[in-house]
Amino acid sequence: MAVWLSTTAEDFDARFKDLLATKRESSADVNDAVAKIIDQVRREGDKALIALSKRFDRVDLGEKGLRVTEDEIAAARAECDEATLDALKLAHDRIAEHHARQRPEDDRYTDDLGVELGSRWTAVESAGLYVPGGTASYPSSVLMNAVPGKVAGVERIVMVVPTPDGALNPLVLAAAELAGVSEIYRVGGAQAVAALAYGTETIAPVVKIVGPGNAYVAAAKRQVFGVVGIDMVAGPSEVVVIADSENDPAWLAADLLAQAEHDTAAQSILITDDEAFAKNVADAVDRQLKDLPRKETAEASWNEFGAIILVKHLDEAPALADRLAPEHLEIATADPEALSDRIRNAGAIFLGRYTPEVIGDYVGGSNHVLPTARSARFASGLGVLDFMKRTSLLKLDSDALAKLGPAAVTLAQAEGLAAHGYSVSIRTNAGGGR
Amino acid sequence: MAVWLSTTAEDFDARFKDLLATKRESSADVNDAVAKIIDQVRREGDKALIALSKRFDRVDLGEKGLRVTEDEIAAARAECDEATLDALKLAHDRIAEHHARQRPEDDRYTDDLGVELGSRWTAVESAGLYVPGGTASYPSSVLMNAVPGKVAGVERIVMVVPTPDGALNPLVLAAAELAGVSEIYRVGGAQAVAALAYGTETIAPVVKIVGPGNAYVAAAKRQVFGVVGIDMVAGPSEVVVIADSENDPAWLAADLLAQAEHDTAAQSILITDDEAFAKNVADAVDRQLKDLPRKETAEASWNEFGAIILVKHLDEAPALADRLAPEHLEIATADPEALSDRIRNAGAIFLGRYTPEVIGDYVGGSNHVLPTARSARFASGLGVLDFMKRTSLLKLDSDALAKLGPAAVTLAQAEGLAAHGYSVSIRTNAGGGR
Repeated sequence: MAVWLSTTAEDFDARFKDLLATKRESSADVNDAVAKIIDQVRREGDKALIALSKRFDRVDLGEKGLRVTEDEIAAARAECDEATLDALKLAHDRIAEHHARQRPEDDRYTDDLGVELGSRWTAVESAGLYVPGGTASYPSSVLMNAVPGKVAGVERIVMVVPTPDGALNPLVLAAAELAGVSEIYRVGGAQAVAALAYGTETIAPVVKIVGPGNAYVAAAKRQVFGVVGIDMVAGPSEVVVIADSENDPAWLAADLLAQAEHDTAAQSILITDDEAFAKNVADAVDRQLKDLPRKETAEASWNEFGAIILVKHLDEAPALADRLAPEHLEIATADPEALSDRIRNAGAIFLGRYTPEVIGDYVGGSNHVLPTARSARFASGLGVLDFMKRTSLLKLDSDALAKLGPAAVTLAQAEGLAAHGYSVSIRTNAGGGR
Repeated sequence: MAVWLSTTAEDFDARFKDLLATKRESSADVNDAVAKIIDQVRREGDKALIALSKRFDRVDLGEKGLRVTEDEIAAARAECDEATLDALKLAHDRIAEHHARQRPEDDRYTDDLGVELGSRWTAVESAGLYVPGGTASYPSSVLMNAVPGKVAGVERIVMVVPTPDGALNPLVLAAAELAGVSEIYRVGGAQAVAALAYGTETIAPVVKIVGPGNAYVAAAKRQVFGVVGIDMVAGPSEVVVIADSENDPAWLAADLLAQAEHDTAAQSILITDDEAFAKNVADAVDRQLKDLPRKETAEASWNEFGAIILVKHLDEAPALADRLAPEHLEIATADPEALSDRIRNAGAIFLGRYTPEVIGDYVGGSNHVLPTARSARFASGLGVLDFMKRTSLLKLDSDALAKLGPAAVTLAQAEGLAAHGYSVSIRTNAGGGR
């Protein structure tokens, strides 16, 4: 049973703060183990990858080869169900189309002093994409992580995926092929992150690493950060649903459970202004739970982290949602835009009664890699900009330098940086220069 | 004396790789000390800030007060030289004008299936700006860190600055006032970062922390990352100068030294195609060093990390620059654009003989907070986007859901997420719904 809070209760503030402060992840300290693995990969290269895969995934990559071959990819594709491939293709095309709109424009202009300024965007040379193995090996995540890089113009996209006991989801390979992944290696864990960051005999290093993973992968990404760029470190998923009483309770119960089935640490929160309706949603959750294949996971999540927040008026909801800063926010009301306009902190907002969050997971076109654990206060979902970087351009001629130089010299002197001042004055004092 | 490399030498590749691999920072392990300080601030709030400032800065903030008052700011401004204030004002206005062009545009559109998609940018609610104390307390850095936040629309910008022995650079306060900083606290070190992240009785927490600092500040930023957003962790500064022999050697020597005077760990590299010219630049460096107030620092940097790379033709320079991925790149040739167009990795490029990098430090308008230590391969300079985040919007009506829903259900089933599928099918199977 989820917790119930009511904004009219005297202890609401304290209980809401508790909700905000809930830690949903056990932060096992794997840093030392990960540091050793990274070190081993740096020293021994492929040999380390083979040894560690034998140990952790029980596969002999010395025999199978590190790289997944073209033939294997073709065979995997042939194994996939046609309807699923079509759905993947639809998802791919919609993600590509939406993300193409995120491509930044270069800027170049000359200001009134004759100074030329510019901002130039370029794609990173290469990107590594981590894909988890086993049950969390999702083809949709392959698309969501690879397509923005492709749209950005990254030439080389390298996928790594562990194959525990040799198993590799054929849909993951099919999705990688669709997305235009350049190379695929069957290696996972911290050792895969180390290989992407530092390179081995077989795997050339990349400059940016993205994609979800377990605690070892997350720790490895943090440790190689600086050597390469990384995306955010994702935590367990969460949804906040703001709903009036005009909804079908079963629809919203399904949405809350879609989130809860991801992970026992996932979090589903309903905000509504009608107690009877809230009760109906809670009952519908209990009913739907019974038949759910992932009942245990969803039930654990709902019981431990689920919450129902009763407000006097839905006007109160945006401020609460902003403090929760959820990864996903559904607004199931007659005029969802009115509430949405008042929200600052959310990874993605799903507007209206016919926009279940799951559409965004797969085929909406927007990215499903979104800021978790209240980081929507300062972070965005994965996008094209994560695979690009901006170079500033500055160009002065002798006239412009004559106008702007003296102020630079003044500030350099004020900061006690004489050589700074001199690098300007030697040019402006030189007259025409040479 | 800087090292000399020549692309025609047999050992060039090995020596260039050594240059790339040079570690310029001693990475003292301050993590444990920093973790203790953060913990103390979380437990004791203001009391910890006062105790730690007494210990590290030798000031009694219990007496002076944590917050810098309006009166103190006015007094500081009155103390500043008028010409310097004018130069600061010019810098401020140019930075604001350039950064205003970085404001992203929202996107909202309906696609051919009737699905509404959008990207909405919002500013972070609040930002903390760390400013170092002592000799590295630069007013220009206050502008460079605060103005992009202001332009982004951040309502609350909180500055922290240590006051060792009570000293506080009046220009830093004047710059903060100019930039529209909301609150200033005289506290520094890891304790200031902890206060910004977690809040104390006096300092309300912020959601993003930016600004340079020493090893303790950098470690504290890394440790609070996740609780708040952080900008990049900056390393020592660097410049690469690509120059033909038509330059005045003394001008380029001045540029190399402007970088070197920052820090003994700074790095200045000249790439040229003319050995005699290179020799002249090196001689000019030695001559100019003699009279430099920060001679010791600049000399140590140049001797230990400076480099001159001789190429057969300047055509080779872009590939080398890309591998160095410098924070600053000067191109002092007749046609700098031709080379610039071939560069992918650089924080900022300064084009032509009349654009010393120092212009970008102060009054060019672009930001001087730029990616160091080869991180220009994947990172950008500080900008407006660092103070904003993007929320995805998705809105379907029943028709659009009927068209798009089945593919989502197919993918949910393929991924074994039944509740995901159900949250869509319960709506599409309901006919008109309610």
